[in-house]
Amino acid sequence: MILLGLDPGLGTTGWGLIRADGNRLSHIANGRLKTDTQAPLPRRLAHLDAMLSALVADHAPDGAAVEEVFVNANPQTTLKLGQARGVVICAVARTGIDVGEYAARLVKKAVVGTGAAEKAQVHAMVARLLPGVKIDGPDAADALAVAICHAHHLASARRIG
Amino acid sequence: MILLGLDPGLGTTGWGLIRADGNRLSHIANGRLKTDTQAPLPRRLAHLDAMLSALVADHAPDGAAVEEVFVNANPQTTLKLGQARGVVICAVARTGIDVGEYAARLVKKAVVGTGAAEKAQVHAMVARLLPGVKIDGPDAADALAVAICHAHHLASARRIG
Repeated sequence: MILLGLDPGLGTTGWGLIRADGNRLSHIANGRLKTDTQAPLPRRLAHLDAMLSALVADHAPDGAAVEEVFVNANPQTTLKLGQARGVVICAVARTGIDVGEYAARLVKKAVVGTGAAEKAQVHAMVARLLPGVKIDGPDAADALAVAICHAHHLASARRIG
Repeated sequence: MILLGLDPGLGTTGWGLIRADGNRLSHIANGRLKTDTQAPLPRRLAHLDAMLSALVADHAPDGAAVEEVFVNANPQTTLKLGQARGVVICAVARTGIDVGEYAARLVKKAVVGTGAAEKAQVHAMVARLLPGVKIDGPDAADALAVAICHAHHLASARRIG
């Protein structure tokens, strides 16, 4: 099962693809999608949509997930993030792939074992859980973490079901 | 020239299509796109995207516009609106159509003649400027108003240019 984790943002969207075989995880690829900060918003959103659609077409994931959003105190920042997040979720959901949403606490718990883990711990554990991975920065690390969380969730659901 | 005005929202997105022939405006169609409030967010965004893509394919507008957003005090509401707005703008921009953004004040000025107009005045003037129009509720009226604003802006730009 191929799972796609996403960390949406207008400037940079992190992504990470893993293979989940029951509880066995392995890394496929990860990276960052960047839009031109000088371009108008509609162009940036369309560019993000095109890059993500190509990624989904190339790798044909079986499932995808995003972290539930930390709502920023600055409403303009929240609006900007919301616009990018809507495009990212939609580009995947449009192809018929389910997109799970997980609270940050659950992602930390799945990766580190405690919901109160620091960011640095999460990133270190992502690297340990996916041997040989080279992580393309913190956004891609966050994306891989949510993919790992999704894998755990699906494995538990299978055990229960 | 066919212009599409949009008033994005996750539950209801208003839309309005007008024909602009220099300063002469006429109504083509208007309505509301609704998503199922019981469905998960990714399904709702994909549904909104599909409806809007069909609308753009059917009417082939030459340009489109949205109002700049009133940022709500409630961050969760802002995030929800942002996600829908991102999908709406992207569905149009993806087809190569430019999407203009206008401040609410400019929309009111274009339709009523003053940036301080009340909502009810704006809706009444939209009906007067587009003879024979039947408006499908306030979201569609707002969408027609931003289409009219876009038409005025393009006509002025042509006069200046």
